[in-house]
Amino acid sequence: MQQPMFVNKVALIVVDIQQGAAMPAELMGIAQMGGVEERVQNAERLVAAARGSAVPIIFFQEVHRPSGVDFGRELDGAEGRHCVDGAPGTDLWPTLVPDPAADDREFHIVKRRYSGFIGTEFEIVLRGLGVQTLVLIGGLTDVCVHYTFADAHQRNFHVRVVQDCVGGSSTARHEASLDAMEYLQAGARRTTDEVVQGFAALAPAAQLAAVDA
Amino acid sequence: MQQPMFVNKVALIVVDIQQGAAMPAELMGIAQMGGVEERVQNAERLVAAARGSAVPIIFFQEVHRPSGVDFGRELDGAEGRHCVDGAPGTDLWPTLVPDPAADDREFHIVKRRYSGFIGTEFEIVLRGLGVQTLVLIGGLTDVCVHYTFADAHQRNFHVRVVQDCVGGSSTARHEASLDAMEYLQAGARRTTDEVVQGFAALAPAAQLAAVDA
Amino acid sequence: MQQPMFVNKVALIVVDIQQGAAMPAELMGIAQMGGVEERVQNAERLVAAARGSAVPIIFFQEVHRPSGVDFGRELDGAEGRHCVDGAPGTDLWPTLVPDPAADDREFHIVKRRYSGFIGTEFEIVLRGLGVQTLVLIGGLTDVCVHYTFADAHQRNFHVRVVQDCVGGSSTARHEASLDAMEYLQAGARRTTDEVVQGFAALAPAAQLAAVDA
Amino acid sequence: MQQPMFVNKVALIVVDIQQGAAMPAELMGIAQMGGVEERVQNAERLVAAARGSAVPIIFFQEVHRPSGVDFGRELDGAEGRHCVDGAPGTDLWPTLVPDPAADDREFHIVKRRYSGFIGTEFEIVLRGLGVQTLVLIGGLTDVCVHYTFADAHQRNFHVRVVQDCVGGSSTARHEASLDAMEYLQAGARRTTDEVVQGFAALAPAAQLAAVDA
Repeated sequence: MQQPMFVNKVALIVVDIQQGAAMPAELMGIAQMGGVEERVQNAERLVAAARGSAVPIIFFQEVHRPSGVDFGRELDGAEGRHCVDGAPGTDLWPTLVPDPAADDREFHIVKRRYSGFIGTEFEIVLRGLGVQTLVLIGGLTDVCVHYTFADAHQRNFHVRVVQDCVGGSSTARHEASLDAMEYLQAGARRTTDEVVQGFAALAPAAQLAAVDA
Repeated sequence: MQQPMFVNKVALIVVDIQQGAAMPAELMGIAQMGGVEERVQNAERLVAAARGSAVPIIFFQEVHRPSGVDFGRELDGAEGRHCVDGAPGTDLWPTLVPDPAADDREFHIVKRRYSGFIGTEFEIVLRGLGVQTLVLIGGLTDVCVHYTFADAHQRNFHVRVVQDCVGGSSTARHEASLDAMEYLQAGARRTTDEVVQGFAALAPAAQLAAVDA
Repeated sequence: MQQPMFVNKVALIVVDIQQGAAMPAELMGIAQMGGVEERVQNAERLVAAARGSAVPIIFFQEVHRPSGVDFGRELDGAEGRHCVDGAPGTDLWPTLVPDPAADDREFHIVKRRYSGFIGTEFEIVLRGLGVQTLVLIGGLTDVCVHYTFADAHQRNFHVRVVQDCVGGSSTARHEASLDAMEYLQAGARRTTDEVVQGFAALAPAAQLAAVDA
Repeated sequence: MQQPMFVNKVALIVVDIQQGAAMPAELMGIAQMGGVEERVQNAERLVAAARGSAVPIIFFQEVHRPSGVDFGRELDGAEGRHCVDGAPGTDLWPTLVPDPAADDREFHIVKRRYSGFIGTEFEIVLRGLGVQTLVLIGGLTDVCVHYTFADAHQRNFHVRVVQDCVGGSSTARHEASLDAMEYLQAGARRTTDEVVQGFAALAPAAQLAAVDA
């Protein structure tokens, strides 16, 4: 009962790949497992493949105001102050940013919470595009990726996660969250190679369907 | 059973006062009743009074991508294409913009729908500020103002509307919507003079309460 | 640019047709315009026509706990205590209730707010059914019907209102709200006769499509 | 930086303790780790302690219609058909049901999704009660409990989980989810003994505060 890789129209969701990913936890505010270089390379391959088939791409960026007004409970646990507007590390990774000339299929969405569905226009954009399958990459596997997955799942989306293109707050939490996502949708765990091939096999015209719900 | 003007902490909500307000309907995409100059003057007085007492201000701006992906059903009725990103008229009114130095109490929120609660971080900001009363100004009385009011009302906020600082798609619809808002909360309809005095009577320190929920 | 009556799959939404509709305002808690008998007859015709073509029907019922914990701000304005659980008038109108044998296409949803989308499973059911057009009947035109319409509109649904099968808190507010809904979607205002004919023209098989999103 | 056990007003949230918890996975549809008897005993102690101090209690029940219309994507992964209306196992555990005489502080909420916030009146009730801290018990630790925790956390609630009163789909997933919740809020993991003592130390009068937001 493995689910197919894509069901109907697909979008690539780049979750919070920001410059802080390469910074030490003391500076960035959040500890992360190693391997960021490889994940960034995989993300670059996935973004290029998505562009090649006109698959929509949404680039999320977590940003908090310096005043702290929008942190909610995010500082009650393991994370320190992070992703503050204007601070080093908060900008998107330089090679993983939307193409401004492609405003009909590349999107930049700032978020204040872990889940991309909370306090954002994410669902408006997905419905406008007619997307039914989300492919998640980025980080943290066990926080923003996992909770965006769970929210998408509970809103009836088909969701996939690229296991060699997401990074966790630790290797153990990364693995536990991949297991939790696979529990929700069998076949959710995919590799960069599989998804790059999957994107390549799509006909670009089908992705540029009329905008409606 | 007239409700008090403010219950606990208050915020001023400036709804879509954009440059198109002064443009003819053929250019702006949406017809509006006259009187924009007076409403802008009232808005300037209200913003100044809010600043004087450290009352938080949220400036909403309706913006749609040129591709149309985020219009939803907004073009199914009386309104033409409007508030397109980069088009003349979409920018905020030049005298009614947030002060970037006041990031703890002045906010700029872009929205894609009529209600300020849909697809935005509005509720995150209101809760972070601890606000319980919203004072609405701007336009259209019968669209973005009315539906933001209804949503706030249904989320337990105390809501007020400044009747000489909101404009409708016609005078009749403006009046009908003011009546509808008064139906929901008795004493919702207020004047610029009343609210300016009300803001002046607030102690700024009380508005700068600790950020928490 | 009148919109078609139905776009893709349609559902009939019966908004709060409860026994209190025939009670005086002092007892029911909310004033209403006359004509309830005719509206109930029209509703019975519409429900029968929907059943004849296997159109899904959702029966909303507004209910509040006697403790008042879930009233929110609903008592701040023109309405008195209303729709209290166990009180006379809160039950659904006896001829307008779901058929328990049709659990795949007739639904009973209790709500605590005006809009059917707030604090309910409405959207889950609509997506499970694959419905894209909502036909609203019931009351009040200017409160629960209008705000459910606005919320559906902002969530990309095609929405229609049967103007001789909805009743307002007054005739003037009823008319103003019909006008507001027509402003949102041209051709939103329909008559019982039109919709009964529209339902009759649908092939039942098409309404019983596979359950998925 | 361990957070206090309760911040302001607290509620006990009983997540899906239904009769199926004692049934084998083949019948109930979902596999669970052992130890249900002990967890039920702990839940009984916690409910009694909450009642002793007038702490509000919300009893969630997951229910799906036999037609399957409201399952969403819940059958795409490890879980089989579960919690079907009318099926054995779907009823609440007989000793863990709301007291109908306490309608101002004991609540029964049916849900269709994992998170208690999706498609329910949960947030309306919590705001009406003025609750700011949620104590979660029940199951599954790694599904309904974890995702309700994450949603509450992202809505600014203080959240605690009673680690010896929640059960997972496996021991490993149970442990991983407890760790994930502790990551979000330090001191989230509590024991039955601690919370029973915490409830006992509360003054009942403080819990029965005026109903407002």
